[in-house]
Amino acid sequence: MACNTGTESGRTMDPAVQDLCKKAAAEGIDTAWDRYEKQKPQCGFGELGLCCRNCLQGPCRINPFGEPKTGICGADADLIVARNLLRSVTGGSASHTDHAYSAVQLLRLMTEGKTPYSLKGAGKIPGVAAKLGINTAGKKDEEVAHEIALTALADFGNYSEAPMKWLTATAPAERVELWGKLGILPRNPDREIRQAMHGTAMGVDGSPMNLLLASLKSGLIDGYAGLHLGTDVQDIIFGIPTPVKTEANMGVLDKNTVNIIVHGHMPEVSEKVVEWAEKLSSEAKAAGAEGITVAGICCSGNEVLMRHGVPLAGNFLSQELAIITGAVDAMVVDVQCFMPAITKVAACYHTKIITTQAIAQLPDAEHIPIEPENADAGAQKILRLAIETYKKRNPSKIHIPPHKSEAWGGFSVEAIVGALAKVDPVQPLKPLVDSIVNGTIKGAVGVVGCNNVKITQDVFHVELIKELLAQDVLVVATGCSAQALAKYGFLSPQGAKTYAGKGLLAVLTAVGEAAGLGGPLPPVLHMGSCVDNSRIGDLVGALAAYLKVPIKDLPVVASAPELQHEKAVSIGVWAVALGLMTHISLPPPVLGSPLVSQVLTEGIEGITGGKFYVEGDSHKAAAGILAHIMQKRKGLGL
Amino acid sequence: MACNTGTESGRTMDPAVQDLCKKAAAEGIDTAWDRYEKQKPQCGFGELGLCCRNCLQGPCRINPFGEPKTGICGADADLIVARNLLRSVTGGSASHTDHAYSAVQLLRLMTEGKTPYSLKGAGKIPGVAAKLGINTAGKKDEEVAHEIALTALADFGNYSEAPMKWLTATAPAERVELWGKLGILPRNPDREIRQAMHGTAMGVDGSPMNLLLASLKSGLIDGYAGLHLGTDVQDIIFGIPTPVKTEANMGVLDKNTVNIIVHGHMPEVSEKVVEWAEKLSSEAKAAGAEGITVAGICCSGNEVLMRHGVPLAGNFLSQELAIITGAVDAMVVDVQCFMPAITKVAACYHTKIITTQAIAQLPDAEHIPIEPENADAGAQKILRLAIETYKKRNPSKIHIPPHKSEAWGGFSVEAIVGALAKVDPVQPLKPLVDSIVNGTIKGAVGVVGCNNVKITQDVFHVELIKELLAQDVLVVATGCSAQALAKYGFLSPQGAKTYAGKGLLAVLTAVGEAAGLGGPLPPVLHMGSCVDNSRIGDLVGALAAYLKVPIKDLPVVASAPELQHEKAVSIGVWAVALGLMTHISLPPPVLGSPLVSQVLTEGIEGITGGKFYVEGDSHKAAAGILAHIMQKRKGLGL
Repeated sequence: MACNTGTESGRTMDPAVQDLCKKAAAEGIDTAWDRYEKQKPQCGFGELGLCCRNCLQGPCRINPFGEPKTGICGADADLIVARNLLRSVTGGSASHTDHAYSAVQLLRLMTEGKTPYSLKGAGKIPGVAAKLGINTAGKKDEEVAHEIALTALADFGNYSEAPMKWLTATAPAERVELWGKLGILPRNPDREIRQAMHGTAMGVDGSPMNLLLASLKSGLIDGYAGLHLGTDVQDIIFGIPTPVKTEANMGVLDKNTVNIIVHGHMPEVSEKVVEWAEKLSSEAKAAGAEGITVAGICCSGNEVLMRHGVPLAGNFLSQELAIITGAVDAMVVDVQCFMPAITKVAACYHTKIITTQAIAQLPDAEHIPIEPENADAGAQKILRLAIETYKKRNPSKIHIPPHKSEAWGGFSVEAIVGALAKVDPVQPLKPLVDSIVNGTIKGAVGVVGCNNVKITQDVFHVELIKELLAQDVLVVATGCSAQALAKYGFLSPQGAKTYAGKGLLAVLTAVGEAAGLGGPLPPVLHMGSCVDNSRIGDLVGALAAYLKVPIKDLPVVASAPELQHEKAVSIGVWAVALGLMTHISLPPPVLGSPLVSQVLTEGIEGITGGKFYVEGDSHKAAAGILAHIMQKRKGLGL
Repeated sequence: MACNTGTESGRTMDPAVQDLCKKAAAEGIDTAWDRYEKQKPQCGFGELGLCCRNCLQGPCRINPFGEPKTGICGADADLIVARNLLRSVTGGSASHTDHAYSAVQLLRLMTEGKTPYSLKGAGKIPGVAAKLGINTAGKKDEEVAHEIALTALADFGNYSEAPMKWLTATAPAERVELWGKLGILPRNPDREIRQAMHGTAMGVDGSPMNLLLASLKSGLIDGYAGLHLGTDVQDIIFGIPTPVKTEANMGVLDKNTVNIIVHGHMPEVSEKVVEWAEKLSSEAKAAGAEGITVAGICCSGNEVLMRHGVPLAGNFLSQELAIITGAVDAMVVDVQCFMPAITKVAACYHTKIITTQAIAQLPDAEHIPIEPENADAGAQKILRLAIETYKKRNPSKIHIPPHKSEAWGGFSVEAIVGALAKVDPVQPLKPLVDSIVNGTIKGAVGVVGCNNVKITQDVFHVELIKELLAQDVLVVATGCSAQALAKYGFLSPQGAKTYAGKGLLAVLTAVGEAAGLGGPLPPVLHMGSCVDNSRIGDLVGALAAYLKVPIKDLPVVASAPELQHEKAVSIGVWAVALGLMTHISLPPPVLGSPLVSQVLTEGIEGITGGKFYVEGDSHKAAAGILAHIMQKRKGLGL
C-alpha cells in the first residue's frame, strides 16, 4: 500500500491519532487520508452538484463556464442541483427515520413483553404522553409506553393529508404554523420519502423552488420522524441521561482487558454489549484478561456514554486507528458511519469486525444479528467472540497511545433544567435567560456533526469553540463534534477554567456548584448522539417559549464544522427550517446553482429566519457567528 | 442555439420526427439530440457506475484500470456500483409506487363520494376482491371497491414483518415461496423504500450481495406496489380495456382543431381531459376550430388509448417535436418522463405547457392542479386555456407531418382471454398453449420501455420485433415500445400480414376471426402503459399456471430495447425476479463492477431463473432471444 502523502498534523490534531497514523504508515496500512490522497483531484462537476445520473441517457454534466448548460432532458444547473440536494437530504432523513423506527418497533415489542429489554425511562413517559394527547390516568408505564409506540407507528400508517402527529406535538406552535403556510408539513414520513424519490426521478419535478421546498420538508422529516422520535423513544426505553463522568481518546483502551468498540448509532446494540460485558466479565478473566473494556466510536458510543459513562475511543476519523492500536478485540457496528474499510484494516490484526443489522453487513465481517427479540443471545455471542479473539492478540503489534481526557456527558434537557432548577426551582430557565439578557452570556451555539477527511480532524470543532467560549458563548454539542471536544478537555469542569470567558465561567460555576458538582459545569455540554440534536431543538424551543419570541429571534446559532454525512445535511436543513443560522465549513454540492446557493444562504432567511452560513476558516466563522449573535441580541433590544 | 450535429436519420427512424427535426434546425431550436451532442463525451466513471456522491468527503471515483480502487471510506467498485444500483432501482420503484398510491387514494375518495369520478370497472372488482380475500356477498360495487382501497392502504400502514398483501395475493405462489426463501419479500413498500435509502447511505450496507438482494426486493415493490396495484386500481376506476382502434403519429394532429397533448402517466388527468374535450367541443367551435383533438404521448396517452382509442402523437423522444409542429395548443403533463425542455421549446410557439401535479412543476408552465376532488374544475380550466391559446396560433409556424398508422390497443389480459375464449370457451388458454406446444408459435416476447437518445428512435423496437415476428414469436408490448411499434403498423391487423411468420399469422387470424374482427389480430398486442407491465406478468403467470410449470421454464422473454428511465431498470429487476430473461440494449451503470455485472447477467439465473441479457445489436439480440426461447422449449420437451 502507498505511504501517507499528507503529514500527520495535516490529517488530524489528535495526538493519539497522529501517533497511530505513523504506526499505520510503518505497517503499510492505508487509512481514509491515504485514500483521500488517491482520490485527488476530486470531480469538479460532482463537487458543484452539476452531475446528473438520474436516467440512462446520462450521465449529464453542466459546464459552469459555458456549454453545455443543460442536460439531455433540458434540466439546467438549478434543477440538477436542487434534485441532487433533495435526494441527498432524503438519504439523510430516511437514515434517521429508519433508525427511529427501529427504536419504535423495539418499544412496541418490549411493551408487548417480547424482548429482553426493560423500560428504564419511565420519567420520560408523562411528558411525551401529554404532548401526544395520550391519557395516562390509571395506566401502567408499560401500557402508556405501548400506546406511545402505536401512536408513532400511526404516523407511518397515516394516509390522510394531516401532518404527522409527532411533529405537531413536539415542534414549536409558531413553527408548525409557518411550515403549514409553506406547505411543507410532512404527512406520513415514509410517504414523503417515497414522494421525494419520485419527484427527483427523470421527468417529474422541473421546478428548483418546488424541490427546495421538498428538501425543507425532508429536513422536517429528519427533525421529527428521525431525531425527535428517536430521542423520545430511546429515552423511554433506555432512560433519560443524567450527568456522568468518563474519559475520551485512545488511552481508554486497556492492554490488559478485552477491548470492545461499539460503533454506529443504535443504542439497542451498544446497550446490550455494555450490559453483557459486565455480566461476562468473569469469562474474560478466565481467559486471562483483567476484565472487559467497552469503548465507543460515533453515536453508538455517545448513547452509552450519555447513559452509562462508557468511555470514548474516538470519533469518525478515529475508527480505523482504533483497530491499528492492535488492542481492539472486537468492533461491533450497527448502522451508519462505519467505513467499509474497517474489515481490511482489521485483517492486518486479530480484530473481529462484527455486524449486527440486516441492512448493514460487510463481506468479511462476522454477522451476529442483534434484533429486539434475540438481543441477549446475540450480545452474549458477541462478547464470547471478543473474549476468544482476545486470546489471539499479537503483543508485538499493540500500541495504545496514552492520551485521554476527562469528559462529562449526560446533559439531556431534563438534566440541564434540573441543574438550573437548583438555582431557581420555580423558573429554572430564568438564571440562564437572565445571564443572556444581562450579557454575561452573549448567546448560545450548538455544535454538531462529523469529521470530514477534507478538514484536519477536530481542528475546526476545537478552534471554533475555543473562540466562542472565550467570547462568553454557551456551547452545547452532540455527535462527533462532542467527541472531538471531549478529547481536548472541553467536556470537563477543568475545561471551563481553561476555555470559558469570564462571564460564562461565572454562570457555569454558579450552576455547577448549585447542582452539587463542586465546581463549574463543563464549558461544552454534551447533549448526546446525532439524533439527540432534537434535545438542542427542545432547549432552544424552551428558551424561545420562555422569552415569548420565535426561535429565529434568539441569539443562537448552529454549526456543523466538519460535516460529512447526508444526515448532517438533513439535520442542517431542519435547523434552518427551525429558524437558526447554521454554519457549515464545506458546502454540500450546490455551488453549481446560483439559485440554490442564494436561496440556502440568503433567500431562505426571509422565509424561515434561518439560513446556511458557509465559512471554511474557523476564525472567520467564529467572528461571523458572534456577529450574528450580536445582531440577534440587538433585535431583541439587548 | 447550435445546429444539429447528427443526421435526422441517425436520430430517429420516424419520418414525422425526422421532418420536424429539420424544422427545429431551421428554426434554431435545440432538441434532446442536440443536447446529447453537447454532452459528449459523457463521463466514463458515471457510465460504469464508479462514481459515488453519497457523502461530503467525496465525490469519489474508482479507476477501472488502476488506482484508486476504493473511495475514501473504503468502498470498492462492487460496493459503489451496488449502492448506486439500489438507489436507482428505488427511484424507479418509488415512482411507480407513488403513482399507484395516487390511484388508490383516488379510489378511496371516489368510493367515499368525494370526487367527480365514477366507477367504470365493476368487472374488475370480483377478481381483485377474491384475491385479496374480501367478501363481496351482498355488497355494492362501491363498497367492495372501498374495501379494496383500504386493503391497499393497509399495506402502506403495515408495521409487521408480514409481506405486503397485494404481492402475496397477486404473484404466483411458486414465486412468493422463492422470494420468501431469499428474504426479499417486501413488507410495507414505503418502509422498504425508506430502508433502501438508509442502507445506501454512507457507512451502512457494505455488502454488495446484500445490496443486490435489496435491489431485487425493490424490483418486487415496483412489480406489486407499483405496477400491479396501479393497473388493478386503475382498471377498477376507469374500466378494463377492450380492443379499440386508433391511429398513431404526428398526423393525428389536426390543424383545424384545438390540439391538446396529454403526456405523463396518470390516467386521472388524461381521462378528465378527454372527458371535458368532448363536453367543451362547442366552445372550441365557437372559437373557430372544428373541434378538439386530444392526442397522447407516453403513458398518459397509452391509458386513454387503451380505454377510449385516443390517438397517439408519439413516444418519449417525440415530445418536443410535437410542439415543434406549431399546432399543439396545450401539452398537459402529470408525472414522469416529461422533459424540462418542453417549456423552452413551447416558448418558441404559442403552445401552453400545463402542469397538474404538486410534485411535478415547471417554472415557466401554467400550473392547474388536477386533484381527485377538483378534477372537473381543473380539466375545464385546462380545456378553456387550450381553446384560448388556439386563437393565438401562428399559421406560418404550423407544419404537421402527415404520417400516421392504424393501431389497435386495449389488449388487457381480460380482452386477450376473451378473444381466445371465442376459440375455446372452456379452456381459453388452450388454443394459445397448443400453438406453442405444437410449434406454430415458438414462444412469446414482451417488449416494453422507453426511447433513449443514445439509440436511433424506435429502430431497436422495430428491428427486433420484425425479426421475432417473422420467426413466429408472439409479441405483446407496452409503454413507449408499443407506441414505437404503433407508428409503423405493428399494432394493426394489416401488420400481421406484413410482419408475422406463417405459423403466427395462422394463429392471429384464427383468433381474430373467431373474435369477430374479420381478420387477424395485430401481430403486436398493445397491453397498455408501463404500469400495465403487470398485465404481461399476469398473462405469463396464467400460461405458467395452465402448463403447471414455473414462469422461468416458459419460452418467454422480456425486452426493453431502448430503456431510459429508472423505472425501466426497476421493471427489469422485477421481470428477472419473476424468472424471465430480460433483454436490454444498454446496461444500467453497473459495468464497473465485475461482481454486479456477473450476478445480474449470469449468477442470478441460478437463483430466480431470470437474468439480464445485454445486447446492443438488434439482429444479435433477436438471435439471442430466439435461442433462449428454443432452449426453454427444449427444457419443456417441446
